[in-house]
Amino acid sequence: MSAADQPATDPSSTESRWFTEQHARSGSSFGLRIKSKLHAEQTPFQSIEIYDTTDWGKLMIIDGCTMVSTRDNFLYHEMMSHPALFTHARAKRVVIIGGGDCGTLREVLKHEEVEHAVQVEIDERVTRLSEQYFPELCESNKDPRAELLFIDGIKYMADCEPESLDVIIVDSTDPVGPAEGLFGAAFYATCHKALKPSGILVQQSESPLVHLDLIKAMRSAMRFADFTAVKTLTFPQPIYPTGWWSCTMARKGADLSGFRERGAATKQFETRYYNADIHKAALASPEFMRVALGD
Amino acid sequence: MSAADQPATDPSSTESRWFTEQHARSGSSFGLRIKSKLHAEQTPFQSIEIYDTTDWGKLMIIDGCTMVSTRDNFLYHEMMSHPALFTHARAKRVVIIGGGDCGTLREVLKHEEVEHAVQVEIDERVTRLSEQYFPELCESNKDPRAELLFIDGIKYMADCEPESLDVIIVDSTDPVGPAEGLFGAAFYATCHKALKPSGILVQQSESPLVHLDLIKAMRSAMRFADFTAVKTLTFPQPIYPTGWWSCTMARKGADLSGFRERGAATKQFETRYYNADIHKAALASPEFMRVALGD
Repeated sequence: MSAADQPATDPSSTESRWFTEQHARSGSSFGLRIKSKLHAEQTPFQSIEIYDTTDWGKLMIIDGCTMVSTRDNFLYHEMMSHPALFTHARAKRVVIIGGGDCGTLREVLKHEEVEHAVQVEIDERVTRLSEQYFPELCESNKDPRAELLFIDGIKYMADCEPESLDVIIVDSTDPVGPAEGLFGAAFYATCHKALKPSGILVQQSESPLVHLDLIKAMRSAMRFADFTAVKTLTFPQPIYPTGWWSCTMARKGADLSGFRERGAATKQFETRYYNADIHKAALASPEFMRVALGD
Repeated sequence: MSAADQPATDPSSTESRWFTEQHARSGSSFGLRIKSKLHAEQTPFQSIEIYDTTDWGKLMIIDGCTMVSTRDNFLYHEMMSHPALFTHARAKRVVIIGGGDCGTLREVLKHEEVEHAVQVEIDERVTRLSEQYFPELCESNKDPRAELLFIDGIKYMADCEPESLDVIIVDSTDPVGPAEGLFGAAFYATCHKALKPSGILVQQSESPLVHLDLIKAMRSAMRFADFTAVKTLTFPQPIYPTGWWSCTMARKGADLSGFRERGAATKQFETRYYNADIHKAALASPEFMRVALGD
């Protein structure tokens, strides 16, 4: 079905309605067919909308950008968590910067070795709305190992006790608005300081097809902040621009060439995308990335 | 930028214009911002439109579905060609069913071992328009090893000399309309008969996230047609529904567990996505596919 010759995105019409994010930078758009708008509010930080879709469950929108859908969030949340945690020998203390929908926190807490996981989300409303509309993502929020803080992640990292953390996961929105300060050497330096030796920082790093210059800049800034090794992983994520996404890992004083493959292959918890083979697959560099990044 | 509250897809307006494919089955849509409509026609088989986009080069639409863009077609064309050709020990004779844009033919002919490659496209207009708007995809059409036929691929395979082919690539539209007969055991049986021992059939098999039932049915039909081994590979493809796509390989009388890894690692031609690591990565089964397909 083509919509080129008909206006199709007016949600107030009684016909088929769509939420469409038009991504100016890439000149591409992605939309989901919606049943109804469940919620809209302006928080001190951003606008948040919740929709009910026909085929993707609930949909959270922040400042007009698709953030989380019930159907496909497992791809992103699993890939933001398990590669880093199966690369680290034994991550006991984990901090998540952002991640207010709590999906990354849930994946992190599937690892028995994790003793303490702090989610540092600037906007409490993201978490409260996720509790209401994405309860499955919040099912580990009451885990005694979990701590939920609603403060500025940049300040949290700046004040963090040196060499106190094993893994830092930066699960933020795009590098505009509140998340802008999370993509730069000054922030990475605070992360480097807070990590124990062999600690790992992992951050969502946008689409390999559209944001290669951002990925290059992030990687340079990570190295500038004294991280020893840097590696970009790719994975599918339909609701984000181009449907193809990445995260970038950086390690303090150790390399990123291997992971606990046996641990991943015999993991004692369920996943829907991640497994040991997928971990290896995500480490493969497409030819144009290998050329551009030297990976 | 959000388009939820504004009609945004009317191409006759003077504002920003978009071509949007609303994919009814998945309840998702994908759009590209367009500069102008370059061509539209109704052929005896289907409607074809060509747009010029702001960021993705040219865009070919068939029956309202996004088919090819200048920017991202390399992902699909490379993955439809090189995994099969680097799995086969030495593919001399290759047939492409469909593939009228000639991008798959171009990739196939990068392999020196290929002596004859026939493209069997039912609709000559697809190729003529590709020559005009995607000339880079057609740059090997005059290769002396290339043969372009504009006839029915189902009939071509039914009439094919037994045990005459090494690789068959089914590069078709979705399994509705002219391509419907390409997704079933009767067609696969003609492919099996036409292949030499250890020959390989590879077919585009839609989105793992949306069309898992189709993939399962294809795989069953391939086994029913006496193929010994079946394997589904995944790769990103932004302009197709969900941005995540697959192809399924089937082999006659041999397994699909390995490929010519050294050959792929030392290939004498350029690619933008494919390399030996990406070949291995594409073979990895996400956990939900492993469970559903037993792969």
